[in-house]
This record gives sequence, structure tokens and C-alpha cells, in this order.
Amino acid sequence: MNIVKKLIHFDKGLLLESGSKLDSFDLMVETYGELNEDKSNAILVCHAFSGNHHAAGLDPETNQVGWWDQIIGPKKAIDTEKYFVVCSNNLGGCSGSSGPTSVNPDTGKVYGKDFPAISVMDWVNAQKLLSDFLQIKKWHLVTGGSLGGMQALQWAISFPDNLLKCGVFAAAAKSSTQNIAMNEVSRESIRKDVNFFDGNYIEHNTKPKNGLKAARMLGHITYLSEKHMDVKFGRKFQNTDSKVSGNVDYEVENYLQYKGEKFSDSFDANSYILMTKAMDSYDASADTNGNLEKAMSVIKCRLLIIGFDSDWLYPPQRGKDIQLAGMKANVSCTYVILPGEQGHDSFLFSADKYDVIINTFIESQ
Amino acid sequence: MNIVKKLIHFDKGLLLESGSKLDSFDLMVETYGELNEDKSNAILVCHAFSGNHHAAGLDPETNQVGWWDQIIGPKKAIDTEKYFVVCSNNLGGCSGSSGPTSVNPDTGKVYGKDFPAISVMDWVNAQKLLSDFLQIKKWHLVTGGSLGGMQALQWAISFPDNLLKCGVFAAAAKSSTQNIAMNEVSRESIRKDVNFFDGNYIEHNTKPKNGLKAARMLGHITYLSEKHMDVKFGRKFQNTDSKVSGNVDYEVENYLQYKGEKFSDSFDANSYILMTKAMDSYDASADTNGNLEKAMSVIKCRLLIIGFDSDWLYPPQRGKDIQLAGMKANVSCTYVILPGEQGHDSFLFSADKYDVIINTFIESQ
Repeated sequence: MNIVKKLIHFDKGLLLESGSKLDSFDLMVETYGELNEDKSNAILVCHAFSGNHHAAGLDPETNQVGWWDQIIGPKKAIDTEKYFVVCSNNLGGCSGSSGPTSVNPDTGKVYGKDFPAISVMDWVNAQKLLSDFLQIKKWHLVTGGSLGGMQALQWAISFPDNLLKCGVFAAAAKSSTQNIAMNEVSRESIRKDVNFFDGNYIEHNTKPKNGLKAARMLGHITYLSEKHMDVKFGRKFQNTDSKVSGNVDYEVENYLQYKGEKFSDSFDANSYILMTKAMDSYDASADTNGNLEKAMSVIKCRLLIIGFDSDWLYPPQRGKDIQLAGMKANVSCTYVILPGEQGHDSFLFSADKYDVIINTFIESQ
Repeated sequence: MNIVKKLIHFDKGLLLESGSKLDSFDLMVETYGELNEDKSNAILVCHAFSGNHHAAGLDPETNQVGWWDQIIGPKKAIDTEKYFVVCSNNLGGCSGSSGPTSVNPDTGKVYGKDFPAISVMDWVNAQKLLSDFLQIKKWHLVTGGSLGGMQALQWAISFPDNLLKCGVFAAAAKSSTQNIAMNEVSRESIRKDVNFFDGNYIEHNTKPKNGLKAARMLGHITYLSEKHMDVKFGRKFQNTDSKVSGNVDYEVENYLQYKGEKFSDSFDANSYILMTKAMDSYDASADTNGNLEKAMSVIKCRLLIIGFDSDWLYPPQRGKDIQLAGMKANVSCTYVILPGEQGHDSFLFSADKYDVIINTFIESQ
């Protein structure tokens, strides 16, 4: 599989939904496979909250496999032998695209907490500029899971002429109150970390690792299903030799401690806050007074919505809400609920039915 | 209603499940109504995780209404004109009974983090000593919700001859992996608060308020139902004048911030850790190799189990597990699932059906 990673600089300014403007910005982009001559085989993949541009294959620098490697690759559900797959790190992220850890060209200093608020719409607008740069007029498919699914849905609404198909997996047309509440607890943990310094931790040469860790531990619980946690860990005690801390009793505690710690090494706290705020504020029907049918009435592409029965972050009902509004709005849409063992995270993993459905949707005329 | 509040000192030592021993201890106790001559009208009420002895009526010192005031009182579901109701602050709590904020009689210093680990069984054993002190041989009813429901169930198993009826509401026979996971995130927030000082914050003349606050915010989400949050707050923005902090956008964020802050003023962090550990470690079938039927086979009292359909902390299925094991163990048990709007917290509130069921159970011959 031909993997190309590059940082693309955009001189054209981007007016953000908040009213702020980025005079220029960078997007870190990875592509897989080859673009055909008439540029009709391009698939745009949108990452979830803490994901990035590295969606497939092995990154030789970090030795990490892409977050959707089970789905994207030669002869996989998204077949890189036939399609040219593009994934970009979202604006405000911390994996190379412009975000809180980038240098503000106006001041020569790191943005930090002063990086402007970003919305899902802003990501879509930035990716439209990326499409123009790549001279891709019409994506064969724009797709993603979780926050990436929201982004794909917004693509279908914002740029109806620029995609043929849209895949919205384990997502919702808006965040629920409980989603917002959970994110607020995570942000609170970060903000109150003594090393957060009101977002100016880089200047203080430190990092609010503890806050990020607690935030990620909570996130993890919401990504897994209750049943999956029960099957995986149950009430088993952690082996003393492998305890990550003396406070740990149960295996599940050890797992969360380990996962949280690892995440806090790599992710940026201001990005965490910015990304969760983008998630909270997303509402596909915001411009149509809460009327999703009306918002979706502009859609021209075909829509595939997939929900997972064990997902309690964005339960199947949220996908159904999109389907029902789509039906009323005369959008060609298919909705499938799959039995995912991994809760919300199910969208990340290859599974017979899931793969077949994605692939059939892509290949369908 | 006759309310009596007193601190009862127990000189008789208490051997704890952990193997540690408390040579003496205090229980803060409140009673409502009058004990009849043959001491047959006593009801023991067990509080939930962050509750205390103050279950009903108005506390003239704090001006606070008891946590189960909607259920306990003259002519209420638990009628104090007919019954003598007793509630004690659990050992390890922070409302007067011996716990981390008490002075260790051996050292003359506050226990702090050195207060021994406490289990649900220890609470039941301490309450058995309280029964002896009050000369109550057989409780007419032992009941409680949430962690208090677990405690009531353990009463039925540990002291089958000392209660006539048992009410287990919004509870489970053991904590699930997800319950443990949520508690671990809360504990992590507390432990990593810069003012926690490894549990020695009292010596440092401070308090890990931020950690406690985040912990409580998370707790609150688990106590309410997703639907209730949606109805109560939806995606409404907080009015600028009433924002508790500049970081708040949505009403639900403001609510959690407010609730968390308030809780962090009054609760003790070591108690929080101790109580959640007691909750995590509870398993009614621990002594019978996970066989709940066997554990319940000793029960002689009648059992009323109530679950609430919107409770996702201890979902109705957990009550059903108790019922099924009880049926196999030949225990006289009734199980009802009620439509509670308040999620897990539904057990706290009066509702027509709920009140009638509790009252009918109490009055039944």
C-alpha cells in the first residue's frame, strides 16, 4: 500500500464559525493508494475525537498502526487497491495540523489556549480547501466514526455537490446532554490540574498529565460497553506484580490507569478541551432551528448509517434519528444496527457484516 | 415527629472483614417515632454512599431535610406514627460516626488515610451491635437504596433471625465492572489533587476540593438518567449572569459545577475513597464462590426488591438477578420495576406506586 504523509500549508484564510479567522493554517495529511485519472476514486476518512491523520498502515516513525487499519487497506472494506484514501488531522488537533501546540504566525509564540474555538463545520470547511488543493471535485465517499461520523454528515449537508456517498458510523446528529456532561467532567479534571496554569502550561514548561489521565480514564469507560468490560475484566483482582500503582485492586482499575497514563504522555490538554467543545457544540440542525429533516433536505448523496447495539455513548437510537429525518427529507439512506461487542469502539474493528456492508455501499452503483 | 439524634459509643471492639480491629467506635444515630413496648415496630434504614444518619425531618443545626424525608414521616410510606425508624451514619463516613476525620484513640491524632478499610459486612456488624444496644432483637424491616440496599441485603444474609422483612431498592448483589471503573476515575481525581497529600491533607491544613468536585460531578451523571438530563437541561445554554465559571457554556455544565462545588465543601476525601472501595468490593456471593443462590439460602425474612427502569448505575437487571437467586433459594421475594424519572436517584423520591408498594410490604402480615 502506497502511504504518503505530508503537511499541507494553506495560505488562504479560513473564517471560523466562531467569527475568528485563521489567516493561514496547516493540515497534516496521509493518503493511501493512488488517485485515478478522472479523480473519481477518492475517499475522505474523518477521524474521531482523539484520532489523527494516521488511519492505516504502519507509521515508520512511531511504529504505530493506523486507527482504522482493520478497515482500510488492500482488499479490505475500504480497498486501497481501488480507492485513493485521504485522512487529515483535524484543525485544533495535536498531531501536526494547526492547533494549540502550533506556533501562531502572528506572534511567533505557541498558540496554547489562545488557539480559536473550532467547530465540526470548520473542519469540513478546512477539508473542502484540502479537496480543492487535491483537485478532487467529488469524493466517492466521505466517512468516519463517532465525531468523524458527525463530520461526514456535515459534509453531506454543507457540500451536497461534492460527495457521492456518505458513511456515518457510531455517531449522532448532535451531542446529548449526557455526552456534554461527561465531557465537562473531563475538562474539569484537566482545568484543575495544578500544572494546567489556565492553559498556559507550555510556557511553564510542564503538562497537566494527571488531569488528562483522569479525563481519558473516564472516556475509556464510555467507549467500551458495560458487558464488554464485564467479560474482559469482571471483578478479577489485579496480579500484584503487574499493578501500575499501589491503589489498584481490580484489573479494570489497572487497565484504566495504564491507558490513561499512556494517553496523557501523547495528547495535548488544550486540544482535548477544544475537541470536546467542538463535539458538544455540534448540532446538524443548529441552522434550521432544531429541524433535522430540514437540515438534511439539501443532501444529494447516498447515506449509510451504522449503529452498534452495545454503544452507549451514541446509542443506536441516535443513528435512527438521522435515518428518520433523512427519510422525511427524501434522502437515499440505509440504516443498520450491528451487534458490536466493543461498545462505541466497535466502529474501529473489522467484523464480517460490518466489512461487507461498508464494501457493498462503496461498490454499489 | 419525634426526632432524636445521638452519638453512641461502643466499647466492644469490632473485628473488621479486612482483619483489622477497631477497639472502640462511635455511631451517629438518628431515630424517628417511638419504639413500642415489645420492641417489634423498629425499622432500620441504611443510607447510600454519600448519605448519613439524617434520613428524615429537618435538622435544626444544618437546616437540612433528611435524605429520605419523602418516604419517612407521619403517614408517609414508612410511617413514623406507627414505626420507630433508626438510621446510623456508616463507619468510615464523615458525619459523626468513626471515620477518617475522627481522632484515633490510640494516637490522639486524626485517623485520616489510616482509618482501616471498611466493608458492607462491617457496617452490618456494627449495626448489629447498635441493635443490641437498642435492645431490638428483630427489626420489622431493614431497608435502603443503592449502597444502602446492598447493606439491607447483607443484613438478611448475615443475621437471618434478626429481621422480619428486607427492602432492597435500586441496588445490586455486587458492583459491576463499570461501577468499579467509574469509582476508580473518581478516586483518581481525588488522589491526584495537589492538596490530597497522599491522604494527609488534614495535617497540611488543606482539602482536595478540586478532586472531590470532579468526582462528584461524575457521580451525578451516573445518578441521573440520560433522558432526565435531556428533559431537564437539554442543550440549553447557561444564562451569562448565573454562570458559576467562565468555562461553562451549557446549563448541564453549570449544574454539575454547582453540585460538585457544594459537595466538595462538605464531604471528606478519605471517606469518599473508603466508601467507594466498600461499594466496589461488595459481593453478596463472595463467601459462596460466586453462588448467590447459596448465599441467599440462609435468608428467612421476606424480601422486597425494587428497580427503576431509568437507573443505569444499578439497572433493573441487577434486581432481577437477586430475585432469581432468591426464588431458587426458596426466599419469599417480590420484585418490581418502577418507572422512575430520576434514574438511579429515583429511589429517593416519593411516587404513588413506590409509596404504596413500600407501605403494603411493611403492613403485610
